[in-house]
Amino acid sequence: MIEAMTKFNIPAPSPPVPTPAKEAPTLSNGLRLAHAMEGLGRSGLRDVMELLARPGILSLAVGLPASELFPHELIAQGIGRRLANDPKNLQYTLPLRDLKARIAELMVLRGVSCRPEQIFLTSGCQQAMDLHAHLLLDPKGQVMMESSIYDGIRMVALRFDPQILTVPSDPETGIDVDAVASWLERGARPAFLYVITEGHNPLGVSISLEKRLRLVELARQYRMPILEDDTYGFLRYDGGPSLPSLHALDPEWVCYMGSFSKTIAPALRTGWTIAPEPLLQRLSVLKHASDIDAPSIGHHAVHAFLESGHFPRHLETLRTEYGRRRDAMLAALEQHMPAGVRWNRPTGGFFVWMELPRHLDAADLLRVAVETEQVAFVPGSALCAVGGSHARNCLRLCFTSCSAETIEEGVRRLGRVIKGVMAPI
Amino acid sequence: MIEAMTKFNIPAPSPPVPTPAKEAPTLSNGLRLAHAMEGLGRSGLRDVMELLARPGILSLAVGLPASELFPHELIAQGIGRRLANDPKNLQYTLPLRDLKARIAELMVLRGVSCRPEQIFLTSGCQQAMDLHAHLLLDPKGQVMMESSIYDGIRMVALRFDPQILTVPSDPETGIDVDAVASWLERGARPAFLYVITEGHNPLGVSISLEKRLRLVELARQYRMPILEDDTYGFLRYDGGPSLPSLHALDPEWVCYMGSFSKTIAPALRTGWTIAPEPLLQRLSVLKHASDIDAPSIGHHAVHAFLESGHFPRHLETLRTEYGRRRDAMLAALEQHMPAGVRWNRPTGGFFVWMELPRHLDAADLLRVAVETEQVAFVPGSALCAVGGSHARNCLRLCFTSCSAETIEEGVRRLGRVIKGVMAPI
Repeated sequence: MIEAMTKFNIPAPSPPVPTPAKEAPTLSNGLRLAHAMEGLGRSGLRDVMELLARPGILSLAVGLPASELFPHELIAQGIGRRLANDPKNLQYTLPLRDLKARIAELMVLRGVSCRPEQIFLTSGCQQAMDLHAHLLLDPKGQVMMESSIYDGIRMVALRFDPQILTVPSDPETGIDVDAVASWLERGARPAFLYVITEGHNPLGVSISLEKRLRLVELARQYRMPILEDDTYGFLRYDGGPSLPSLHALDPEWVCYMGSFSKTIAPALRTGWTIAPEPLLQRLSVLKHASDIDAPSIGHHAVHAFLESGHFPRHLETLRTEYGRRRDAMLAALEQHMPAGVRWNRPTGGFFVWMELPRHLDAADLLRVAVETEQVAFVPGSALCAVGGSHARNCLRLCFTSCSAETIEEGVRRLGRVIKGVMAPI
Repeated sequence: MIEAMTKFNIPAPSPPVPTPAKEAPTLSNGLRLAHAMEGLGRSGLRDVMELLARPGILSLAVGLPASELFPHELIAQGIGRRLANDPKNLQYTLPLRDLKARIAELMVLRGVSCRPEQIFLTSGCQQAMDLHAHLLLDPKGQVMMESSIYDGIRMVALRFDPQILTVPSDPETGIDVDAVASWLERGARPAFLYVITEGHNPLGVSISLEKRLRLVELARQYRMPILEDDTYGFLRYDGGPSLPSLHALDPEWVCYMGSFSKTIAPALRTGWTIAPEPLLQRLSVLKHASDIDAPSIGHHAVHAFLESGHFPRHLETLRTEYGRRRDAMLAALEQHMPAGVRWNRPTGGFFVWMELPRHLDAADLLRVAVETEQVAFVPGSALCAVGGSHARNCLRLCFTSCSAETIEEGVRRLGRVIKGVMAPI
């Protein structure tokens, strides 16, 4: 049985604290760096990755799609045909209109009705975040996000030396919309609020229609853009009707960001964003400055794959297999975890979120787990927008990257480690 | 005969002028954008591109490699093998160490001796510029570049709302190093100086060893990083010994930036930078925030092509054919241009730079050329770091994107247009 989880005990939002002026960092030879580089390079997640790079580790840590499910033959065939038909497909050209049209068709599955011209193609969802941040965020500006959040949005924001306003999130129900409202009522005016509607990273949670409606209502009321990260939006495992994305509820104030990294393959580096139309031309200029706004071979590969008509069946395969792996993880947790450990039951995405008894530190536990049982996860403290103490006793498990058998073995080992550290109490 | 070109008549550097505080731009619905978005979106080059997009135009404008020379079959085969052998090549993984090793070998051709670990892989040279700018440039900081320059570096810089310090450049001898020294002596401390050593875009010029040595001497003396854009460094047409890149002369203060977009194919989006070692880890963090620091299918394709051993021969093919096209352009200019029009004779790269009589405006000429003769080029005013008046009577011609016959026809048409507008004088 899944125990009801207590709400995270996160301090109520407090007024912004001005950050003191910083010295520009200087390297030993006298090379001056930009001020924003000061905080960069310190990432809890990157520190953890070093531990995970050890050979022989059974990793439930990194959020990887299953490489054995990549449609690699169809992708190779698609690229082969595309290049044989016309070498100009390797040239600088305009972004692929036909790929935009295919994506616009897919967006119906997320409740969105849009024209191909509204789709802006990016190098993965990460680049969409980066471009939107450049579009909206001033140096030292405000941004709002959940206190446990995808590390990539934090890294995007950090380059602007921002004031990060955090809101709590519950692993069963997701973002605390009251806390968002409270910040706004008290005068906060963030450049954007970042939200993952489905299969949250790292919390696994998908939010209710009621929360979605309240979020877009707040966005409209306070003229606050929402960056909606829908990386996992096509990966729901329990059937039933899909809830509309935030963008479907308000296309004017919600910038949608999607990706094929989890549904086709990461190395194709193909994502997209749907933004209010006045932003599209600026996105193109920004992308041009970032890496040239022209199609990559990855965009061609995705287009060829979508054109082949195999995508709906492929998505069905992923949903079935990932759903099976999620169930395997939940069953193993049920079997191997001692009392006092809690976890949620995600309906989509890649992750289960787990809460240990309050006195345990998941980062310490990771070191023990890697040393004694060669099993790994990501401690909650490495997935925080600011600081990390609120999620110190939490951890994230990925259920997509290993087979059901490996997941079962990994959870068994993790159970032994946790029982080991709980025993002395 | 190529006439000796007079030095551009560019005003001497003047002291920095503080920029007034700006209102944040706001869209009609009340959406606030970042302040730096104010100037963005206005690009002389992008305006010109609309003219060029008309069907049936014979374009000597855009700097495109010849798509008929792309090794498209070998690329498709390489990708096919790579994906058949291991679907994990489509996964998130670490940047390709073997590709770095191949690039380190190639760098010997540019006088650089480096280890694979020093190569940092990017999404084209454009991303290298973008990452270095984030690394080095503070909002409203100073940057230095030539007054006629590649539009991409200007777009990179604009997002930082910078003070752009310009130095003149001569189409026969390149960057005015005295002007660089003069800015520095008078207290300028730019975050970086951007330099194209070989086959300058748009001027076509390559600079002398003496100028190279003085530039790195200034960089060391004033602790000023140089971003060396060597996009065209492998494309020299006259044989003879290659001059060392700036990075070869000073690896500590020069960040080298290279690309396969012009030597293999643009859509593979593969470039690299060699930076002082303390910067490498930060580059990785910055790239992660931009688009995830993992290999793309394009990186795999380039690696497979380099491994196949075909690159040296392919490069020789490009040098021979592009050299032939350059010669065709120079011969056609000799034949079809009226007295009073001058141009240079590039030893590398993609471009010839042309100077019309002072009373002519190349942007006006472009409109006439497109209307009456369906031939296009880029006016010099669209390729300026700041303003555009100094190069108003100049234009850029690309000699790589069309066959020799088409180039000849294009120059013949352009000659008629210029004679037509010069006649009334």
